[in-house]
Amino acid sequence: MANADGLAINLATIRKQYDLRGAAEACARHGISWVAPWRDQVASTGLDETARILKGNGLRVTGLCRGGMFTVDPNAIDDNKSAIDEAAALGAQCLVLVVGGLPTGSRDLGSARKAVADGIAAVLPHARAAKVPLAIEPLHPMYAPDRAVVNTLAQALDLCDALGEGVGVVLDTYHLWWDPNLMRDIARAGAGKRILAHHISDFLVPTRDLLNDRGMMGDGVIDFKPFRRAVEAAGYRGPQEVEIFSTADWWTRPGDEVLATCIDRFNTVC
Amino acid sequence: MANADGLAINLATIRKQYDLRGAAEACARHGISWVAPWRDQVASTGLDETARILKGNGLRVTGLCRGGMFTVDPNAIDDNKSAIDEAAALGAQCLVLVVGGLPTGSRDLGSARKAVADGIAAVLPHARAAKVPLAIEPLHPMYAPDRAVVNTLAQALDLCDALGEGVGVVLDTYHLWWDPNLMRDIARAGAGKRILAHHISDFLVPTRDLLNDRGMMGDGVIDFKPFRRAVEAAGYRGPQEVEIFSTADWWTRPGDEVLATCIDRFNTVC
Repeated sequence: MANADGLAINLATIRKQYDLRGAAEACARHGISWVAPWRDQVASTGLDETARILKGNGLRVTGLCRGGMFTVDPNAIDDNKSAIDEAAALGAQCLVLVVGGLPTGSRDLGSARKAVADGIAAVLPHARAAKVPLAIEPLHPMYAPDRAVVNTLAQALDLCDALGEGVGVVLDTYHLWWDPNLMRDIARAGAGKRILAHHISDFLVPTRDLLNDRGMMGDGVIDFKPFRRAVEAAGYRGPQEVEIFSTADWWTRPGDEVLATCIDRFNTVC
Repeated sequence: MANADGLAINLATIRKQYDLRGAAEACARHGISWVAPWRDQVASTGLDETARILKGNGLRVTGLCRGGMFTVDPNAIDDNKSAIDEAAALGAQCLVLVVGGLPTGSRDLGSARKAVADGIAAVLPHARAAKVPLAIEPLHPMYAPDRAVVNTLAQALDLCDALGEGVGVVLDTYHLWWDPNLMRDIARAGAGKRILAHHISDFLVPTRDLLNDRGMMGDGVIDFKPFRRAVEAAGYRGPQEVEIFSTADWWTRPGDEVLATCIDRFNTVC
């Protein structure tokens, strides 16, 4: 069997093929030892049962996906505290934060960005007490309107500096590959001990859908090896996590084919 | 008639409705005095005839669209010199440069960015002699693969600093609105006397097509007035130029409706 050491599977990648139990068993069959479940998957399986399933299949959790949405969810503070508790119960390495886009009808990026800083600050004591690091994920600028108003690694790191201990960043190739300051800022993230996760997927040309047309590593334009070298040089030793949303392609294929391809590309392309 | 002072129309906005002569006459009818033609429109009309049509309709040229493509066109240097000559013949305020994306099969952003700097440097003496400023247009990061590897205003300004006199930037709301450093970098562009053009269109939610689904000002998420104030505070006094590519919407409407809407939104939203 191909070597899956150092590989994690974000369960969104195989969410159309499996429920949580099926996904866990499939990952275990392929020799994968790290996964990232989504909260809706955990909720429909039950938190305790999820923990049992993952443990029974020898799986550890990189990040729980996801908290955040501070700009658009009036219940965001309580909901993020619940997400922190769930992450703690699953032994997750971090809680991934997709911070939220512009509120409906708003064009005020500055206020939305302030709401993100305030929201994370409000839940940070709870996260520190639970020993769950909060992982701010800067998203590609094309998601600024409706998903995340944190759009560069430098911006996320500035936020970390302002917030102090207990927060860090997700480095996702899909979101960050284009940034002219990428290498500088990965080094900065490492120097500040802020790297909590490393996600991988490829940027396709053409991209047919802004959200759900991510590519398997090697099928797009991203140069993965320099990215990985920079992340390792910055001191991160955790797994690389495949996170692919793909309505027209990978979500339509058999789960075993998707996982085998992830492992193959991880070993050859990344 | 509504006031179109300070408004320019990029002729891509009405390219499906009119040929160059028709577009010029329509703009003149609406009291518009600035246009930006594309080179294919100029070529099919003829350069001298284009100049006559524009002059006969009282139209001046903001920028000629476009030069660039240094990363992908083996004939880019000669072609950009021709574009410079055409811009001079039309009395254009600048030649807009869409610098080019990754060459087919390449994932090497660093080399592509170097090729852009080298390409502009190679044609810059010709541009200076012709007194045609070269306007580097930073494009939204979603176009890094296939259109332009210059993706932030700061990156474009660094390029200008390295190149010296005779180059500047296009400030396009669609490409730049999300940038956390936007206000800082617009001020920097002004301080360096680098602002050569100000393009406007809106970012729609959802965006159905990466290239040809731009919105009319007011229909998306961009806050135009602070952008305009920053550009004016930075010392730019030229027109704001509407540039909308819109397969499913504005390209299907009567040209008079498109132009009237541009003028109305310019006066109310921008």
